[in-house]
Amino acid sequence: MADRRAIGVFDSGLGGLTVVKELAKALPNEDIIYFGDTGRVPYGTRSRDTIRKYAAEDEAFLLSKDVKLIIAACGTVSSVAADTAENLPVPFFEVVTPAAREAVSLTKNGKIGVIGTAATIKSARHEKNIKALMPEAQVTATSCTMFVPLVEEGWHNSEDIIVLETVKRYLSDIVKSGCDTLILGCTHYPVLSDAIQKVVGRDVRLVNAGTATAEAVKEYLNKNGIATDKKDNGVYRFFVSDKPESFRNIASSLLGETVDEDMVEQVSLNDL
Amino acid sequence: MADRRAIGVFDSGLGGLTVVKELAKALPNEDIIYFGDTGRVPYGTRSRDTIRKYAAEDEAFLLSKDVKLIIAACGTVSSVAADTAENLPVPFFEVVTPAAREAVSLTKNGKIGVIGTAATIKSARHEKNIKALMPEAQVTATSCTMFVPLVEEGWHNSEDIIVLETVKRYLSDIVKSGCDTLILGCTHYPVLSDAIQKVVGRDVRLVNAGTATAEAVKEYLNKNGIATDKKDNGVYRFFVSDKPESFRNIASSLLGETVDEDMVEQVSLNDL
Repeated sequence: MADRRAIGVFDSGLGGLTVVKELAKALPNEDIIYFGDTGRVPYGTRSRDTIRKYAAEDEAFLLSKDVKLIIAACGTVSSVAADTAENLPVPFFEVVTPAAREAVSLTKNGKIGVIGTAATIKSARHEKNIKALMPEAQVTATSCTMFVPLVEEGWHNSEDIIVLETVKRYLSDIVKSGCDTLILGCTHYPVLSDAIQKVVGRDVRLVNAGTATAEAVKEYLNKNGIATDKKDNGVYRFFVSDKPESFRNIASSLLGETVDEDMVEQVSLNDL
Repeated sequence: MADRRAIGVFDSGLGGLTVVKELAKALPNEDIIYFGDTGRVPYGTRSRDTIRKYAAEDEAFLLSKDVKLIIAACGTVSSVAADTAENLPVPFFEVVTPAAREAVSLTKNGKIGVIGTAATIKSARHEKNIKALMPEAQVTATSCTMFVPLVEEGWHNSEDIIVLETVKRYLSDIVKSGCDTLILGCTHYPVLSDAIQKVVGRDVRLVNAGTATAEAVKEYLNKNGIATDKKDNGVYRFFVSDKPESFRNIASSLLGETVDEDMVEQVSLNDL
């Protein structure tokens, strides 16, 4: 039986929109309800306990919107707080598992790089997932704390000296490792793809967790018969925990589609 | 009559420690209770309403610690939320008023630059304060969003190409303006003083809001007879809303003194 309810997606802020972009390609008819915790972004520099508290609140908020499935479109939450979703009454997806699976299927030399926030890298979740599938894999992982602020400031052009020098500095160990596959372990990072590709070279395959996750969700919906049966393009609604104005401006550029005023609504932090 | 209670100081995170450093010089015998809202940092990119909510909670927390005076050691709170302190039962200081006063006393050509967070610059509070004292002043104000992440990442060396290029990019209008005085309108920014001085040139006077504020507080305590009469060095206690570990590491470098484990305590966000 088809299920017309929306897919719920959340992130610490804007990064999860790169996952929404991939969902729009893979599942164009599905409605999406997005929650961006812009009042408390970033998550990646905070402690595990704080991230877990925020994640549980984000999930509860989406549940209150009657979604049929929840995606943690946030590398940090996926890495350190996925178990906060264990008792959810709806299916739950995160972005680490699909990304690790795709990286393992792509690598030829068994050397895989991972970049993400401080909390993500500290958790070593990607490494554990990769080794479970490919015990002989060599994983090099590096946190890139300044990438999220760069993206949120709109600095991502690969000709920009600040962008390029920052990418070079963080990725020196990745380049040295000789990996042929690199997981973008934070959903903000696909925005920096051009600069990252320039630094690691064209032969290294970049894994966008959003693409892999959207495919996994598509497979699940079809297999369980809960994809929508609507024929129109999906309807998107965005909720944020700070003022919608700044979200709208950057959201349009991340999504590649205009986000209108009436599509974004503010949620009080007191209600989370 | 002397008042031995501590001075309460708060900031969105670490930046306020540059104010504590100045207080330590000006008022070495005073005890200080510091609250850094590391679970919700940064404030400067958030909306006015969110900043005001957080500021009111920070003030209430310090009051619960029985402080004799509260300092908002945060340029953003000082600019957009100073009125949340209007009904406090203790004296309140912010960092905009003393900085504007000092800038006016220092400038020779009447051209004053201001740098701060997005929220601070949008509020135009420095400009209003400066013009109230010097109506003919010409003020050039610029927000420097990446400065706080740079400082929190520990990238502040003036030889660092990323630091220097970032400072140059944000300060181009300031340099063009021909100002002879520049207010560092965010308490994180003194950490970048060397790089900023290099970009604006040695003839431009930098105004550290912490220095000006510490002097104003000293004057107030003495005038009202509520300075401590203790002869020992003041005792400092730090409270943070995220895990103390990362705070301790950077705090020691910002303060120029070791911050021991037992000096820092975590406050639950639920209690704010």
